[in-house]
Amino acid sequence: MDTKNLGFEAINLGHGSGGIMTRDLLDKIIFKTFDNVYLNQKHDGAIVKFDGEIAISTDSFVISPIFFKGGNIGELAVNGTVNDVAMCGAIPKFLSLAFIVEEGLKIDEFIEIVRAIKAAADQSGVKIITGDTKVVERGKGDKIFINTTGFGEVHPKANISTKNIKVGDKIIVNGYIAQHGMAIMSEREGLKFESTIESDTTNVNYLTKELLDEFGAHIHLFRDPTRGGLASVLSEIATDINQGISIHENKLPLEKQVAAACEILGLDPLYVANEGVFLCIVDAAVADDVLNLMKKDEKGKNSVCIGEVTADHPNKVVMHSMIGGKRVVSPLIGEQLPRIC
Amino acid sequence: MDTKNLGFEAINLGHGSGGIMTRDLLDKIIFKTFDNVYLNQKHDGAIVKFDGEIAISTDSFVISPIFFKGGNIGELAVNGTVNDVAMCGAIPKFLSLAFIVEEGLKIDEFIEIVRAIKAAADQSGVKIITGDTKVVERGKGDKIFINTTGFGEVHPKANISTKNIKVGDKIIVNGYIAQHGMAIMSEREGLKFESTIESDTTNVNYLTKELLDEFGAHIHLFRDPTRGGLASVLSEIATDINQGISIHENKLPLEKQVAAACEILGLDPLYVANEGVFLCIVDAAVADDVLNLMKKDEKGKNSVCIGEVTADHPNKVVMHSMIGGKRVVSPLIGEQLPRIC
Repeated sequence: MDTKNLGFEAINLGHGSGGIMTRDLLDKIIFKTFDNVYLNQKHDGAIVKFDGEIAISTDSFVISPIFFKGGNIGELAVNGTVNDVAMCGAIPKFLSLAFIVEEGLKIDEFIEIVRAIKAAADQSGVKIITGDTKVVERGKGDKIFINTTGFGEVHPKANISTKNIKVGDKIIVNGYIAQHGMAIMSEREGLKFESTIESDTTNVNYLTKELLDEFGAHIHLFRDPTRGGLASVLSEIATDINQGISIHENKLPLEKQVAAACEILGLDPLYVANEGVFLCIVDAAVADDVLNLMKKDEKGKNSVCIGEVTADHPNKVVMHSMIGGKRVVSPLIGEQLPRIC
Repeated sequence: MDTKNLGFEAINLGHGSGGIMTRDLLDKIIFKTFDNVYLNQKHDGAIVKFDGEIAISTDSFVISPIFFKGGNIGELAVNGTVNDVAMCGAIPKFLSLAFIVEEGLKIDEFIEIVRAIKAAADQSGVKIITGDTKVVERGKGDKIFINTTGFGEVHPKANISTKNIKVGDKIIVNGYIAQHGMAIMSEREGLKFESTIESDTTNVNYLTKELLDEFGAHIHLFRDPTRGGLASVLSEIATDINQGISIHENKLPLEKQVAAACEILGLDPLYVANEGVFLCIVDAAVADDVLNLMKKDEKGKNSVCIGEVTADHPNKVVMHSMIGGKRVVSPLIGEQLPRIC
């Protein structure tokens, strides 16, 4: 795409008018990039065929800054929703895409985001089938917000529900935690670490599909610890199932530089947001096999079993520390890192 | 809902954290209001059953002001997407709901909006099945933006496509135009008219279903002239079908006070946004019967045939004026009324 010939250098209110300027923006950038039979209907909506159970998930992305180490708001908006659909035990197929742009966003930045969306969608095998573009005045938004809503076919072998979780179940995490949150934090605080921390934003939908293919209903739950981090998700689960959860500090997959950055900023990595991390609560009988399968996959090569469901301390998450102590892990209460996704 | 006992008077950043405050907001307001089996899964997504063709449409609503004569942003967000799904020839069933709230929004206002969403969803027979809440800092948003994505079953008799439009087809509009845009404009400009203009926001999905039940494939197109108004939508259609469209000024359904307000503000009502208006392009053979059916419905009682598709002037919309003149109606170019929906 030759951005010089677009005839505009920034998004302005006219691009949200519904008139010729909107059509121009769509034709020159959106339809050109996402070209597919569904989107090409160019109607207010798209028509797709589905048979059976569909998982539907929606998320608005308001992350600041919109460009960060390891990605930008575009791929985040795809991966985040793709993963939410995958967490339902489904195979993501389609996404809707809605922009709220602040007047003045540079067209080069917009195109870079759109391209990242396209690349991420291709990578996870989903199509952008319908969308919307709104523009707000300067100072009434913040560069760009993106909503994606995802649709996936529920895997025929999936039976994902907190109701299936029982005492003894193992809790497996697919990789290093707290990377996304710390990447954003270090951008914002302008921290310079010896080696740079990157967001872990990625899609995990092929790995979750593989797990369902192989272990079906032995997978009791998938959940991605985004906002609020591992602590908040585990606490929510403990409350939902009315059982306890034990985790082991020495098992937590945490990169040294992330641990160091957390220490500098006084943050507990258990509360820091992740994007490419998911946890998998499985029948103890298959836990080793699940772990082996996960470790063979690029998106799960650092998988580790961090704990288990226990009848002790119902509704509570307890962390066993490296030196033999125990502490209750409460859920996040207020805000730790605003606009992390 | 006793807003006094909520423990907070305004939305703050903690409500978007993903932690306990988010859960609190959801439990006390969202889950309580929208209570249904899908939403109650309380997962990151919802699972629904579908067989066949689904119409999917997404829209973000950024209207300012958020409360206006005839409605608020909440019902607009439901009706707008419900109607977009209906325009695809489908029966709307489910909506996702995603909020981007600016820190400081009064909780009373938030609740009023949530209640309007619930009422509008009930009225159009759709369920809110999944959602998301993000909060941005003061000055980084504007009170509240809402994205809704809608899903509907395509009507078995529907065959809605510009490809089906042919010369001689009649163009029917279900009621008074330009009301929504002028209601918003008069709020913004603080204009006082003798009688007040109200937004026409409403759902038209039962009427479109009735039309498809009765006339099936004789209905060639539904389209709602929202942003950009009737002129932009008709121009788009003329271009798509490579035929001309003739409309008749004396047939245009326009209330006197709306016409007067347009004149005061120097606006052409053909370009002003509508919300509860749709146009219906039908086989000439059934046009009278379509009109009769529409007139019997509350949402179509002011229906009128405004024009027809013609082989003359391909790609152009021509208006025949009351005094016998003709003029080409071009599509809207830039922005007329920003943030109208």
